[in-house]
Amino acid sequence: MTKVHSEVLAANETYAKTFGDKAKLPMPPGRRFAILTCMDARLDPAKFAGLSEGDAHVIRNAGGRDAIRSLVISHKLLGTNEWFVIHHSDCGIDWLTIKDQAASVTADVARIRAHKLVPAGVPIYGYIYDVKSGRLIEVPAATKAGKV
Amino acid sequence: MTKVHSEVLAANETYAKTFGDKAKLPMPPGRRFAILTCMDARLDPAKFAGLSEGDAHVIRNAGGRDAIRSLVISHKLLGTNEWFVIHHSDCGIDWLTIKDQAASVTADVARIRAHKLVPAGVPIYGYIYDVKSGRLIEVPAATKAGKV
Repeated sequence: MTKVHSEVLAANETYAKTFGDKAKLPMPPGRRFAILTCMDARLDPAKFAGLSEGDAHVIRNAGGRDAIRSLVISHKLLGTNEWFVIHHSDCGIDWLTIKDQAASVTADVARIRAHKLVPAGVPIYGYIYDVKSGRLIEVPAATKAGKV
Repeated sequence: MTKVHSEVLAANETYAKTFGDKAKLPMPPGRRFAILTCMDARLDPAKFAGLSEGDAHVIRNAGGRDAIRSLVISHKLLGTNEWFVIHHSDCGIDWLTIKDQAASVTADVARIRAHKLVPAGVPIYGYIYDVKSGRLIEVPAATKAGKV
């Protein structure tokens, strides 16, 4: 077993020992929202957005893009009714300036909003996460494009 | 602004205030591994696997499936060289028994291993996360199927 493999299992053992009431959490997200963001190792959505286990769906891939299937399941099957689309600065996938990134978030949100499987009742907010400060910076044009 | 929207921004403000040295984290994951798992709200991979910001890529979608693009980028561009594929009990996407789930993890890991873009040097481990205990349960057949 590699060092990483055994470290992950040891950390999990510690986590499980104090699992407690989390065993009773229901499947649907308690705070009824979803976050779509990048897989980047520097981002911890639970920490930067204040999530406890059970609160919200978190969807992540390279770049934080193209996740219509997951978002639609999140809403239709499990009741989320607000979505955050969050790209980030210094992204290894995009290599864009912040200005370009804002345009990229806006385009992604507009594409999600326009998709035929995306329900009309869900507002979509566009943000950039700044890896140098931990701050979420709103992209107003994206949030506007994601309005119901 | 909705309640959730303002709560997320307030939580982020608190997080950013104590961001500190995380501003210096490099882009490549420090512990050089990736986790592919479900978007389910009850799962917090950073907590259940002991990750700090900067440690590992985390890829999540409905069911924790089909993420070859992200995994390949994770390895080729950003140097991860071990991958965990983690499904979970009581999954809203699959509705399978644990026995079926083990078969599903094994099939997914075998499919990733066999993909022409997946490099030979990366071991892939298969696990089921038990939402009632917080424990990672190994699927030995999957880990075997993901061997280098």
